[in-house]
Amino acid sequence: MVNVEIITIGDEILIGQVVDTNSAWMGQKLNEAGIEVRQITSVHDQKEQIISSIEDALGRSEVVLLTGGLGPTRDDITKTTLSEYFESPMILHEETLRRIEEFVEKRGGEMNELNRSQAMVPAACQPLPNPFGTAPGMLFRKEGRLVFSLPGVPYEMKYLMENEVIPLIRNEFKTEEILHRTLLIHGLPESVLATRLEDWEDHKPAGLKVAYLPAPGRIRLRLSINGSDRKALESVVEKEIEKLFRLLPGYISSTDEEFLPQLIGRLLKEKKQTLSTAESCTGGSIAAALTSVPGASAYFKGSVVAYANEVKMSMLNVSGESLNRFGAVSKEVVEEMAQGCRMALKTDYAIAVSGIAGPDGGSEEKPVGTVWIAVAGLDRTHSGAFKMGNQRLRTIEKSVLAGLEMLRQVIVNY
Amino acid sequence: MVNVEIITIGDEILIGQVVDTNSAWMGQKLNEAGIEVRQITSVHDQKEQIISSIEDALGRSEVVLLTGGLGPTRDDITKTTLSEYFESPMILHEETLRRIEEFVEKRGGEMNELNRSQAMVPAACQPLPNPFGTAPGMLFRKEGRLVFSLPGVPYEMKYLMENEVIPLIRNEFKTEEILHRTLLIHGLPESVLATRLEDWEDHKPAGLKVAYLPAPGRIRLRLSINGSDRKALESVVEKEIEKLFRLLPGYISSTDEEFLPQLIGRLLKEKKQTLSTAESCTGGSIAAALTSVPGASAYFKGSVVAYANEVKMSMLNVSGESLNRFGAVSKEVVEEMAQGCRMALKTDYAIAVSGIAGPDGGSEEKPVGTVWIAVAGLDRTHSGAFKMGNQRLRTIEKSVLAGLEMLRQVIVNY
Repeated sequence: MVNVEIITIGDEILIGQVVDTNSAWMGQKLNEAGIEVRQITSVHDQKEQIISSIEDALGRSEVVLLTGGLGPTRDDITKTTLSEYFESPMILHEETLRRIEEFVEKRGGEMNELNRSQAMVPAACQPLPNPFGTAPGMLFRKEGRLVFSLPGVPYEMKYLMENEVIPLIRNEFKTEEILHRTLLIHGLPESVLATRLEDWEDHKPAGLKVAYLPAPGRIRLRLSINGSDRKALESVVEKEIEKLFRLLPGYISSTDEEFLPQLIGRLLKEKKQTLSTAESCTGGSIAAALTSVPGASAYFKGSVVAYANEVKMSMLNVSGESLNRFGAVSKEVVEEMAQGCRMALKTDYAIAVSGIAGPDGGSEEKPVGTVWIAVAGLDRTHSGAFKMGNQRLRTIEKSVLAGLEMLRQVIVNY
Repeated sequence: MVNVEIITIGDEILIGQVVDTNSAWMGQKLNEAGIEVRQITSVHDQKEQIISSIEDALGRSEVVLLTGGLGPTRDDITKTTLSEYFESPMILHEETLRRIEEFVEKRGGEMNELNRSQAMVPAACQPLPNPFGTAPGMLFRKEGRLVFSLPGVPYEMKYLMENEVIPLIRNEFKTEEILHRTLLIHGLPESVLATRLEDWEDHKPAGLKVAYLPAPGRIRLRLSINGSDRKALESVVEKEIEKLFRLLPGYISSTDEEFLPQLIGRLLKEKKQTLSTAESCTGGSIAAALTSVPGASAYFKGSVVAYANEVKMSMLNVSGESLNRFGAVSKEVVEEMAQGCRMALKTDYAIAVSGIAGPDGGSEEKPVGTVWIAVAGLDRTHSGAFKMGNQRLRTIEKSVLAGLEMLRQVIVNY
């Protein structure tokens, strides 16, 4: 099976200014097309580093995908480095020049020396037209191996991957079917889960790989298998999943990459119930997570982000007395928020969150990280207090998960 | 100056199931501590790949940081691989065993063989205590070079980085001050900006590195410099930033990593004005972006996520007639949403968004990706329609930026 490596070029990744989401997207798409990514390497915009990373990758893999460093500015050196590495002088590619002229004109800009320079490419390469930017993709061939150079701008890279790179690789190399299935498991620590599955792991089919991905409160168990016949692979994996459901009764909450927002959506759709959220410290993040799921409008009606106390009163009917007596971050207020939201938005359930995300606003009694969460349901309201630590964004993230998980338990148990 | 490399171990990154946020965080923290990351490499849970990536890294750099593959399950092989690579047999580390016993007991669990196995480490390593999990960090030394092995669970890795790894590196190697400053530039295409800065780039101080990071509608221009005296570096960079403000009058909207939510927060605080949002297809994502900023409560009062039309009517006072006549995704409705939100939440500005994120809900007249955005201000309401494409999450993300950018222009121009 063909091996592919990704090399991302750019200081911004190594200094942590940018998270490398391109490689994850590329890994996913390549896997779906039956192509394995062997290694991802991130290097600086530095000639020697780029060249040695390409050499190393070509020593291991048939295809190398470079991203980044193709802009018209001086800090971008990928193209001149490739010209040197492939000992191929830069020439003007007329077709690319015309495309750039059209592109610039359409956007009401004017051609300048730097735009024009984007049409210069190493003579040895096959330019790959990029309709979304001025930098063309490039394909180089070396002893039967392929080196692609792609822009780092995500939507330009994605277009070229889907329309040029993946079809070219599939055309020239043998690919396989790659199948991943992920089970979401709640309520068992990793070591207990693994102990329960010991015997199953001893006897699982050859070629089936198992991975444990732990996260707070849940474990993702991934089954992976490669082969030529997708149907056959699917039947192998389905059989193992059936065994796992029998081995772990009640612990598997979903198959596939179905996270809490998807899972809750499925539960609500099954029961034909609806949901709303009343959010203070999470600032709309629970609603955003729920509405990231296509079709959420079938069960999610809306949310009141009540950051200011006056909004808690006017929109959610929280009483001024409760706010004064117990404070905004309290069992009383968060339960009133949930109930008020459920009434105002006329839904079966409402999740409410009120907490101190920090860095300011903490007190001795209620330190930064204190979060109250409530779920109002058909006949009662559940609530709980959490200590989420002192990192603002982490507290928001944890509160989103805790709120969704509280709702999941309420839906499942009633 | 010391060179550090990061190697992440785990199939989940290479198949794109997980985005590698650990490396970005590590890169940032190391830079702040005056330590440069030379390369990031991601490899599979596969013995030969792990060993050859360590060998390659040690050939280039003084310090290698491994993350991942330290769980108690069979798919995690980093520890046994290190035992083989350093030719060092596994021994029981009593102190770690006691720590694990305490950890498991505190959480109400029971010790089992797999937990106990987490206390086995290669004899040659120095275990680094991890208070947040069962896997200890490990430090190996080889010919004056250091190899650290850290868990992949983010909060465990972060604790060990801050409390063990960075202090150890700073203690044993020469570090420097590393300074990055980023300017946010609006309204100039990259090639035009670079042309304007040509002369400045020709004459900038030696050692000052410049990088252009383009994104839709804006460019981040990063200045980076290394040296021994932080004060001196700061004064060099400040002088250049002053020059840039003179060369690009009106185009620089902020210095440092100040993105739109921060920038808008600063503008509103200066003007003592307040903001709310009324969101349909963005589902709370604008509110979430605004409240990711510490201190947002000074200007952000709240949001109504009006996913259902009845919520648009009841909470935002949108007229049923407009909904019937023009549809939820229309100039009329989005303007009513903005005005209604501004009134209901009593704020100076309100952003409203209504669109079709897809995959369903599109029509010939209003295809998936059609988004209307409005900003209601003191005396008038601005609005515009956008075509955001057919990828749901990308449409939400683009709509957040477009809404914030529309508000920024309204605030700046009035």
